[in-house]
Amino acid sequence: MVQSTPTRLRDLALAHQPDAALHMLQALSAEERLQALLALPATDLAALLQVLGHERVARLMEHFAPDDAARILLRLGHADAADVLEEMGPDDAADVMEELEPAVARGILIEMDPAQAQEIRRLMAYDPQTAGGIMTPAFVAVYPHVAAGAVLASVRQRAEDAETIYYIYVMDQTQRLLGVLSLRDLVLSPAHVPVSKLMRTEVVKAQVDADQEAAARLLQEHRLLAIPVVDHEGRLMGIITADDVARVVREEVTEDIARLGGSEPLEHPYLRAGVLEIVRKRVGWLLILFIAGAYTSTVLSHFEATLSEVVALSFFIPLLIGTGGNVGSQIVTTLVRAMAVEDVHLGHLLRVLIKEVSVGVCLGAVMAVATFLRAWIQGVDPRVGEVVAVTAIAIVVWASMVAAVLPLTLRRLGVDPAVVSAPFITTLVDGTGLFIYFTLAHWLLRL
Amino acid sequence: MVQSTPTRLRDLALAHQPDAALHMLQALSAEERLQALLALPATDLAALLQVLGHERVARLMEHFAPDDAARILLRLGHADAADVLEEMGPDDAADVMEELEPAVARGILIEMDPAQAQEIRRLMAYDPQTAGGIMTPAFVAVYPHVAAGAVLASVRQRAEDAETIYYIYVMDQTQRLLGVLSLRDLVLSPAHVPVSKLMRTEVVKAQVDADQEAAARLLQEHRLLAIPVVDHEGRLMGIITADDVARVVREEVTEDIARLGGSEPLEHPYLRAGVLEIVRKRVGWLLILFIAGAYTSTVLSHFEATLSEVVALSFFIPLLIGTGGNVGSQIVTTLVRAMAVEDVHLGHLLRVLIKEVSVGVCLGAVMAVATFLRAWIQGVDPRVGEVVAVTAIAIVVWASMVAAVLPLTLRRLGVDPAVVSAPFITTLVDGTGLFIYFTLAHWLLRL
Repeated sequence: MVQSTPTRLRDLALAHQPDAALHMLQALSAEERLQALLALPATDLAALLQVLGHERVARLMEHFAPDDAARILLRLGHADAADVLEEMGPDDAADVMEELEPAVARGILIEMDPAQAQEIRRLMAYDPQTAGGIMTPAFVAVYPHVAAGAVLASVRQRAEDAETIYYIYVMDQTQRLLGVLSLRDLVLSPAHVPVSKLMRTEVVKAQVDADQEAAARLLQEHRLLAIPVVDHEGRLMGIITADDVARVVREEVTEDIARLGGSEPLEHPYLRAGVLEIVRKRVGWLLILFIAGAYTSTVLSHFEATLSEVVALSFFIPLLIGTGGNVGSQIVTTLVRAMAVEDVHLGHLLRVLIKEVSVGVCLGAVMAVATFLRAWIQGVDPRVGEVVAVTAIAIVVWASMVAAVLPLTLRRLGVDPAVVSAPFITTLVDGTGLFIYFTLAHWLLRL
Repeated sequence: MVQSTPTRLRDLALAHQPDAALHMLQALSAEERLQALLALPATDLAALLQVLGHERVARLMEHFAPDDAARILLRLGHADAADVLEEMGPDDAADVMEELEPAVARGILIEMDPAQAQEIRRLMAYDPQTAGGIMTPAFVAVYPHVAAGAVLASVRQRAEDAETIYYIYVMDQTQRLLGVLSLRDLVLSPAHVPVSKLMRTEVVKAQVDADQEAAARLLQEHRLLAIPVVDHEGRLMGIITADDVARVVREEVTEDIARLGGSEPLEHPYLRAGVLEIVRKRVGWLLILFIAGAYTSTVLSHFEATLSEVVALSFFIPLLIGTGGNVGSQIVTTLVRAMAVEDVHLGHLLRVLIKEVSVGVCLGAVMAVATFLRAWIQGVDPRVGEVVAVTAIAIVVWASMVAAVLPLTLRRLGVDPAVVSAPFITTLVDGTGLFIYFTLAHWLLRL
């Protein structure tokens, strides 16, 4: 008989086979692992924790998103939860604590070692979107006069608790950051040299209240494994490691993509997000876009006479405004990404505009031919075909101008340029495109 | 008088001030640095290289994109270029060589140290999109019987050339990968223990022909600083380091975002891409979308009689199909991202469909009210208002179904789901939406 994963996990726990249980958990995908652990009755979960030991469970927890880890910890007693949290990196532990009800978090903190509880409380005080919010205080630091050999000994001692031992930070008595040396530098040096002779003093560092994205960029740009975080007096508060940065970058990209698609980012992984959460994240933009687009019906009713006279004009409405929207969407997605990776900034506005209008003229010419052919195939009055072709080029160039200017100007105004989503630019071009269409029709057909 | 950057660089080179020159270069942004170096006459560039030394120039080159580094190297003689490439990581050097004309690359390879030239040739043989294409052979490996103390000595020796010394790989005489230990493990162990006792034998590794994205994901998932790359016999061929992975992830995201916006990714950073390159990357999708959307005019001409009878129906065309497109765009961007981070896969199709249809019913109801109000404010026949409201809910649910199903099914067919761009889904929903609109109108208005 094939047993379910939770049942097999329980059996392995009761048979006291930690390696087999761990192996089984590691073979699962992150989502399956979460579901298996959540499906275990509380007593079996406690038994599994007993067998695996707090440290191995802590490693497992660190691989879950903080809210998932919180859901599992909630199913343990406060004392067990506290023991697991003590074994986790303080930054990960603080992230998990932030997901708990304040009363529950307080209950668990009381059970923890007071020094560690204090550290977690301090981390929880920082805005999660800042360098302080993602840093860990688990770094190795030494005074400048210490010799390389002694530092290596201290690294050996602290390796257990430190998030990384690949960088050793040098600070003075007031905790001010003086320099950094890598484990590599240390291993390569004679034992008697003081670290002040080995350290690099030009340290790439982040301010504790700096945006987490800026800190992440700094680490990636300089290809570092970690960067130190300092307060306004230059005191070393913590470090941000490469895997924190990978998570920040991932989250930021997910946000950008959600906004580009015209919705607010979800708070949970897609499959876990409830229907109401999804509705809430989408309905706002849908209504804004609806209201912004509502004037299209005003424009059309304004041209009611033209429309009833030449019904064939209405055939091409979706095609023309669709093409304008497509061009706009191509441009804003390209620009928003170029701004995110800092290829483009406000100073480039004119260059971007000139480039996009040039591209727009080329694309507009192609689309004019395509629309003219389409109208001809459909067999409408050739004069309508001419109007449609001229409109195609006008709309494409117009959409190019709007889409080139908007993201950069919005950034200037302090708005996330990713809100200039594909739907947003499409909606904007819809109404203005119709206005261009019917004005040109009116004029060229002498209505 | 204020001097230009290239002039000042030349002066610093002639005055033999390497530190000042390096400092000045490091203060520039990557783009400014590139432009300054390209603006230097060839003789001044050679002088600067002389003063800075090949190694420092190699570090500068590694921070440029391969094609930019290639443009600078082209301005040096073959011998100088070879010297700089020898000092670069072999993976970076191979990437740069791939950007050069084959004849030029051969000319430079001849000037290089034969062993290093051979290594670069071997790397150039791998598909750049695979693990082999981004790996470096600059790793530290030892045999299993060697004692920890001796390994530390060998690490000291090899640190200069290795890409990372934070992992030491253990292999047998046939180069087969047996295990891995970290510098951390090594530092923490007594000197006499053989590495076979210290190494972990369950190694996270990538196959040499695996997709670079899959390899990147593996490293990030396991929070590693590097992963080994093996061939089909399990022989250690190279390693992939965290900063290679950061670059892969960055490129993949840029590609996904470009496709979501309805264009092919650019080959160069936006500001450097020429007008014709941009046109080429966009015109294909624009035409495909145009052809896909062309049937909207067929649908409309099919309903010509209905349109001339109730012109007011045409007022709401952009608004209704726009809303459908917006909903579709919200869904596909969310799903494409969820698939990219592996939150969602094909097995979830039914769950996704049910979730999106539920969300669609809620959003459709909201939009039905909004469209009805809009029609009422505009003062059209209330029966038209009813048709518009019923259409709103139908189109939103329909768009939800299409957008939920398409990305997952395309992935199944081996197509990049990101091609289901916002413009694509908008176009698809445009025509079908019109059909729904006029069919409902026909039926409800008894035309």
